[in-house]
Amino acid sequence: MNNELRRRLASLLALVMVALVCAFPARPVRGGSEPSPPPPVIRITPSAPVFDDAKRLEELAARRKHVADAIGAKGMLVLFSTEPRVYTNDVDYQFRQENNLYYLTNLNQKRATLVLMPGNAQLPEILFLSRRSPAAETWTGHMYSAPEAARLSGIKEIWEASEFDAFIKAVRNHEAYRPKPENVLMTSMSGPTTNGGFDSLFNAAAENQASLYVLNFPAQGESREYRQEQRFAAAWPKESGFTIQNASPIFAQMRLRKSPMELEIMQHAIDISIEAHERAQAFASQAKWEYEVDAQVAYTFKLRNADNWGYPDIVGCGPNATTLHYEESQGPVKMGQLMLMDVGAEYGHYSADVTRTFPVNGKFSKEQAEIYQIVYDAQEAAAKAIHPGATLSQVHNAAQAVIKDGLLRLGLITDVTSPNQYRVWFMHGTSHWLGMNVHDVGGGATFEPGMVFTNEPGIYVRPDALDNLPGTTENIKFINAIKPAFEKYKGIGVRIEDDMQVTLEGCKWMTGALPRSIADIEAFIAKARREAAVR
Amino acid sequence: MNNELRRRLASLLALVMVALVCAFPARPVRGGSEPSPPPPVIRITPSAPVFDDAKRLEELAARRKHVADAIGAKGMLVLFSTEPRVYTNDVDYQFRQENNLYYLTNLNQKRATLVLMPGNAQLPEILFLSRRSPAAETWTGHMYSAPEAARLSGIKEIWEASEFDAFIKAVRNHEAYRPKPENVLMTSMSGPTTNGGFDSLFNAAAENQASLYVLNFPAQGESREYRQEQRFAAAWPKESGFTIQNASPIFAQMRLRKSPMELEIMQHAIDISIEAHERAQAFASQAKWEYEVDAQVAYTFKLRNADNWGYPDIVGCGPNATTLHYEESQGPVKMGQLMLMDVGAEYGHYSADVTRTFPVNGKFSKEQAEIYQIVYDAQEAAAKAIHPGATLSQVHNAAQAVIKDGLLRLGLITDVTSPNQYRVWFMHGTSHWLGMNVHDVGGGATFEPGMVFTNEPGIYVRPDALDNLPGTTENIKFINAIKPAFEKYKGIGVRIEDDMQVTLEGCKWMTGALPRSIADIEAFIAKARREAAVR
Repeated sequence: MNNELRRRLASLLALVMVALVCAFPARPVRGGSEPSPPPPVIRITPSAPVFDDAKRLEELAARRKHVADAIGAKGMLVLFSTEPRVYTNDVDYQFRQENNLYYLTNLNQKRATLVLMPGNAQLPEILFLSRRSPAAETWTGHMYSAPEAARLSGIKEIWEASEFDAFIKAVRNHEAYRPKPENVLMTSMSGPTTNGGFDSLFNAAAENQASLYVLNFPAQGESREYRQEQRFAAAWPKESGFTIQNASPIFAQMRLRKSPMELEIMQHAIDISIEAHERAQAFASQAKWEYEVDAQVAYTFKLRNADNWGYPDIVGCGPNATTLHYEESQGPVKMGQLMLMDVGAEYGHYSADVTRTFPVNGKFSKEQAEIYQIVYDAQEAAAKAIHPGATLSQVHNAAQAVIKDGLLRLGLITDVTSPNQYRVWFMHGTSHWLGMNVHDVGGGATFEPGMVFTNEPGIYVRPDALDNLPGTTENIKFINAIKPAFEKYKGIGVRIEDDMQVTLEGCKWMTGALPRSIADIEAFIAKARREAAVR
Repeated sequence: MNNELRRRLASLLALVMVALVCAFPARPVRGGSEPSPPPPVIRITPSAPVFDDAKRLEELAARRKHVADAIGAKGMLVLFSTEPRVYTNDVDYQFRQENNLYYLTNLNQKRATLVLMPGNAQLPEILFLSRRSPAAETWTGHMYSAPEAARLSGIKEIWEASEFDAFIKAVRNHEAYRPKPENVLMTSMSGPTTNGGFDSLFNAAAENQASLYVLNFPAQGESREYRQEQRFAAAWPKESGFTIQNASPIFAQMRLRKSPMELEIMQHAIDISIEAHERAQAFASQAKWEYEVDAQVAYTFKLRNADNWGYPDIVGCGPNATTLHYEESQGPVKMGQLMLMDVGAEYGHYSADVTRTFPVNGKFSKEQAEIYQIVYDAQEAAAKAIHPGATLSQVHNAAQAVIKDGLLRLGLITDVTSPNQYRVWFMHGTSHWLGMNVHDVGGGATFEPGMVFTNEPGIYVRPDALDNLPGTTENIKFINAIKPAFEKYKGIGVRIEDDMQVTLEGCKWMTGALPRSIADIEAFIAKARREAAVR
């Protein structure tokens, strides 16, 4: 018998044994039926929420009514669409509608402009919209027809976008405006516009008591997002009798309290993000470079039809995890290191914001686990502080206290009462509001059910942290005292971030389906890798 | 024998047969060694190009010298970094450097500004750069140190960014400028700046013969990309003795001719795009929605460390393929339809631009094949027209002639001499320059080796194409004549796009590795699906 034949017979024997094992599995088969396959370890995103159109339009109408009530009969609101953002030359980024315009209309198309005039019984709301153009649509795709825009937004008065400038000029001059008939794309008015409709606004203007509401006025900080509004407000003539008012606080108040519909959309954005995190954790030990892990995120977001990320992915291994907004993803992935992933999908105009930190090899080292457990405990303490009536700063204080105690225990600080020491390792807040922006509007509000924010304490032992402290006597003493602990934990960065919804009873962890404790993460990675190997 | 046992024995028998086939494969095994696994059908992107740093710096220095020579001793060039692009609120898109600044420096960091003063022997080039800040780096990641920026760019004179305004003010006043010593981050000068260095510039200015070069002046079209340059030029005082000149043509001429290093980078961007196309084609028949196919592209681009897409992905099935820049990807994927994918990665600041149209089910129908073959033949004719000395319009004419003949043969036009008829189905040009922009600079240049452009004819039988023709007598006659053919081909959209490099002999298909003929595409999909099933 030659070697080749012997080798083949050995292979055959092995395969027959495999066949026997397959045909007669050790697992008992109940009732003669086939065992169902084990549920997949990686949590597949549930179906996207579907809303009854009448209910959705009712909610949009209620939002517009709320804004109209806030503005009053002497006010006029103008909301512009986002100006397209240039990538390079004639290529733009994917269009993303300005949040507040989307919030009132669900329209996601450029050059749409909304005007609310609550005091104008004939024209309380006008939508300016580009007329459809077959030539343009051949090139860049579908544009809304007026009936379609009406079906999406519930607004029934739609004029061609080119009417906007003349309309605004007329209002400034206190003249009732009648658009060219061919530019009235849709209307619910039976007769022509009369001056009567504009009376309350123009009478107020005649007494210098009218108000023009625009977003972000006066400009806050850089406010690069609202340059169009700034130009518009700056060009508004002072002698028109209108005072320019900031519309932003009206929206901030409303958007802070999420409706059940908004919460469902946010949950879906979060569910997509959870699947992305799980795929990345299952795959990470096979990756050489951070961007390869990030590829799992890009894949999941697109596969589940996310609008985009809510913010650029943060995927950092080892010391890169100690840079808070590390967006390069160019570093190596190393066994034995922790990987910090702060990635959240945007879906239906709402962003998730989720961070997990996990061991590439699936097992936390002792030092990694020590840091991790403190952050975990801080999150738990923060969650306990959440209930209607509480505030973000109370949540932060709860997390901070646990972090300080933990850092003291590990020897990374010497004094829990020092306002500076813990900040060397935990330099950011615990929470921010979450919604259409990842850092959403809301300010210092008191919690009510339906508000959503992040719970994201962290500890970052940056390798250069001590080098960058000013050389004061106090700092030198501090550095000497904590040096041994620093050397022990150097290069470890941990953040855990969950999305919390305030409920009547306290809070709901909207990110609760994503493993978070040390034991759960280790168990998940072990199982998920097996699954990945089987597939 | 009960059913369960019979079923199991049948399974066992089947598995034994599989085992026999495996152990005694039909394929002969040479020399007793194991057969190596078949090469993967999907072409994996080759390793990224690696350049010798000295050679890279030599090329950057040569580019700067070329620009300096064009500007002359009486000129000064200012290149700004891209202003960050807002996504929403405080979230920006990933930073992408302005092309020409990157072309001269390879620096990809915001707030870097380059000044060239060819007539200033002491300070022919100054780079303004933000000083590193540990606090900022803790938040948003690594900033260049001055030595690092010098290593990347080859520029040895580096001043802190905050010096820029004062420097410019001094130049306008014809005063030699000396930065604060602590703001000189790096210098090759031994002594202090003297007026001597600035003499040629200031003497020219005194005679109103100095020139300030900025990009995109006067503003072309919307030129939203260069608002910073426009503000800078507008604020420059006329009485300074400087005329403002447009720097863009200097760069357009240079960037049109790609160096071997640039061509290698472009080939890598193209190779990444080829892998993305192949993964998508292999997967498409499993997808329900266009965005699921696009997920393969997003995955591949990130996995292979592309900077980004070069332009938003176009993934359209069936009639959506007839919208040229269809970017929504929200439609269903249907067996029996064609899928048009126009997706190109950007790598190392250079964009690929690649389109394939393929049958979701892997087999072209007769009608689909008829349209496809015309577009294919047009591409071939276009390629034959490429050689040094030819022009883009000659390439277009070659493609157009084939398209017209084909459309006449299919009955979609009645007159090849009509300048309007074929445009109903082929409404775009065949080519554009390709480089740092997907629609790159270059204008009507005559071909030289190293120039790169697209070859992308198409035929789009839009379902509403005839409805949108003006109702002239001529059009009505046309519509009646071609109606039967229109009904036959309605909803079919085909574009094939390859990236062509002009060579001494003619041209190179840089996208040549991606199947393109009907036979090759069908064979590829059949094999790639089998591979996908095995994995």
